[in-house]
Amino acid sequence: MSAPKVVIVGAGFGGLAAAEALAGEVVDVTIVDRNNFHTFLPLLYQVATSGLNAADVAYPVRGIFQKQPNVDFLQATVTAADWDARTLRTETAEGHTVTLPFDHLIVAAGATASYFDIPGAEEHGYPLYSLADAIALRNHVLARFEAAAAEPALIDGGVLSFVVVGGGPTGVEVAGALAELFQMVLTKDFRRMDVHRARIVLIEMTPALLGPFSLPSQRHARSELEARGIEVRLDQAVASVEPTQVVLKSGEVLPAHTLVWAAGVQANPLAAALDVETTRGGRIAVGTDLRIPGRAGAYAIGDVAAIPGRDGGLLPMLAPVASQSGRHAAGEIKRAIAGRPSKPFHYRDKGTMATIGRRAAVAELPFGIHLSGTPAWLAWLGLHLLFLVGFRNRLSVFLNWVWSYLTWDRGPRLIVDQREARDARRLEAPTTPHR
Amino acid sequence: MSAPKVVIVGAGFGGLAAAEALAGEVVDVTIVDRNNFHTFLPLLYQVATSGLNAADVAYPVRGIFQKQPNVDFLQATVTAADWDARTLRTETAEGHTVTLPFDHLIVAAGATASYFDIPGAEEHGYPLYSLADAIALRNHVLARFEAAAAEPALIDGGVLSFVVVGGGPTGVEVAGALAELFQMVLTKDFRRMDVHRARIVLIEMTPALLGPFSLPSQRHARSELEARGIEVRLDQAVASVEPTQVVLKSGEVLPAHTLVWAAGVQANPLAAALDVETTRGGRIAVGTDLRIPGRAGAYAIGDVAAIPGRDGGLLPMLAPVASQSGRHAAGEIKRAIAGRPSKPFHYRDKGTMATIGRRAAVAELPFGIHLSGTPAWLAWLGLHLLFLVGFRNRLSVFLNWVWSYLTWDRGPRLIVDQREARDARRLEAPTTPHR
Repeated sequence: MSAPKVVIVGAGFGGLAAAEALAGEVVDVTIVDRNNFHTFLPLLYQVATSGLNAADVAYPVRGIFQKQPNVDFLQATVTAADWDARTLRTETAEGHTVTLPFDHLIVAAGATASYFDIPGAEEHGYPLYSLADAIALRNHVLARFEAAAAEPALIDGGVLSFVVVGGGPTGVEVAGALAELFQMVLTKDFRRMDVHRARIVLIEMTPALLGPFSLPSQRHARSELEARGIEVRLDQAVASVEPTQVVLKSGEVLPAHTLVWAAGVQANPLAAALDVETTRGGRIAVGTDLRIPGRAGAYAIGDVAAIPGRDGGLLPMLAPVASQSGRHAAGEIKRAIAGRPSKPFHYRDKGTMATIGRRAAVAELPFGIHLSGTPAWLAWLGLHLLFLVGFRNRLSVFLNWVWSYLTWDRGPRLIVDQREARDARRLEAPTTPHR
Repeated sequence: MSAPKVVIVGAGFGGLAAAEALAGEVVDVTIVDRNNFHTFLPLLYQVATSGLNAADVAYPVRGIFQKQPNVDFLQATVTAADWDARTLRTETAEGHTVTLPFDHLIVAAGATASYFDIPGAEEHGYPLYSLADAIALRNHVLARFEAAAAEPALIDGGVLSFVVVGGGPTGVEVAGALAELFQMVLTKDFRRMDVHRARIVLIEMTPALLGPFSLPSQRHARSELEARGIEVRLDQAVASVEPTQVVLKSGEVLPAHTLVWAAGVQANPLAAALDVETTRGGRIAVGTDLRIPGRAGAYAIGDVAAIPGRDGGLLPMLAPVASQSGRHAAGEIKRAIAGRPSKPFHYRDKGTMATIGRRAAVAELPFGIHLSGTPAWLAWLGLHLLFLVGFRNRLSVFLNWVWSYLTWDRGPRLIVDQREARDARRLEAPTTPHR
């Protein structure tokens, strides 16, 4: 009899934690992801703002599991589940269909941007949910400055105006990092241009930034952003987005060639393809033991799952929820194999943080410990280094941060346009004849 | 009276050397390049084979000249010259036309791949002349292994066969680095696949690898390549290229889904757009003083120029020729401004090197000093570190090399597909309305 097959959909924090928790068990684990790497999402905004290399925040999945022989990897997208046959249907980048049988299934497919059907938002907005997104935003931001340098008349039309929608941690972090990129680096790169004409507008629908944080943290974030020249607009919402302007619900028109969309998230639409029950934000309904009702041996974890919290609400879409629920689902599988009863999942809240810039951050830790300014910033740096996968990545990020801090310089402000390369040209000419 | 305007087309070794040699002069320098960064071409093959990060071998042009106030930068492509008006016509990535007046012009536009009209070679081959090329090849190579893992039947069809065309330094270096990537890293990443079925074939038209090197160096290169399992085919030429096979002139058909094209180079086709006289390989004819005949105040340097050597032939397309001729052209401009007579350019040959892999390289230095094996490899490492632009890049490359050497690991083996990102989606929707 061969070992029970565990399939994990998604190589994010949840999927990796689940696979690692199955180390040494007599199971045959396959991780499926559309990318061949894990992406450290909390630092994507630093790639987008030229602070870190793309490779610093990504680590190949096969590399992570080189020393865990019960884990295999498949680069593919899940397209459907056959619950009777207990198989997943997947499609590779080349268009091949690969069928994966499973005895136990962990759905850890994460989240994606939600545009609330705002006209033009998806078409013209830049989300920050993948490494490719981050590189695209970096290219776009830097190219706006090159365009302004080549054709200064464009500045009046908003080529240097950047609208960030969403006052949560991602929006706050992107806005702060853009301001520091402009002030610290691009003023020196574009000596003959008045970089101070660049404008960053942060738009938040509710009356406060960083909704779940305490009032002092919210105020600290706002004052630090404003100190960096960012226009913070609360109680305002976007009505529509066009390539060169953003229209607010108030009727105000902001000329801007860049819209960063950090306003809403929804579960990976895979949930619909799997034919399972979903709830708010498209998240998969699960019990307190993370099982998907009516789908024996199937679990959902992390952002894609609607995990009930103690207060009756759902747990937030945060990395620690993903990791902890991943380990719990792995534990459930071990208990099921051993014939032991299941246990409910309890989330241990480790707190949340957001960074605005150099020596400016807010952190809200358990036991009512609230930090701001330099202590919060150092805590943020340390924790992010600690959780980065791979010693080489940690070293590289650490050196980049030390370098930037000491020199006020940034490294990889490159506009790398893949469209001109070979792969783009052969978009319509796949290399494999066996479709 | 404003300072004389110097326009330098190209931010390669030649263009940078020329601009740097004009530091402190009362001239107004503008560097034009289609990319916003300088690319360290000799290390592109390490990006293509997952040895280095893309950002390690590229450095933003504006960053290089932050402390040289007489240099400005324009990201654009040169489309024509008006020799009477003494202006260059350029086009930006956004499609704007920018006209650049010049008093002195240095054409340093470099070289590009030449496919000798071999059917399918340009369409299906992977060249290595830009950072985008290197990333595309890296994505493609890694994606072949993922495809083989998902669908092992593809291996019989050649999905793991890699043909490298051209036995010069680039071909030798790519073939050697691919072999080490497969043997050192991918055998561990793809534990359940027989990576040893991967095949690397190096095809060279002439009877020897590394044509201009001495016979012992040629033999050393060949035996080191063969020791790494590479099939070296001399005296063979490619007749045609298809997506999944390469046809040789002998009639032999090699099933292969990857063709690396390192066989021929030609001058940047810009030479034709400038309406100047060209010679072999499309290179711009210049005098011994690097002036373009009949085009007062215009110079051509580096790969794009047909620079006469002492022996009556043309100087080779090498980085030291570009740097030295760049400095000479800058000197000519200084002499012209000062009303002093021009001097002929003399190339000082510093030797050539090629590396095959770990502790395997050949170096031919002046005074008949020939090195091979570990000493040549160390010389190669040291010199390349020395000439990399930017301390941060040097540090990052050095650490990457030390890490790889000690751990037999490689870092950035990421398949980053930009096609799914925002920028790709808006390919047809430019952000600026002022076309």
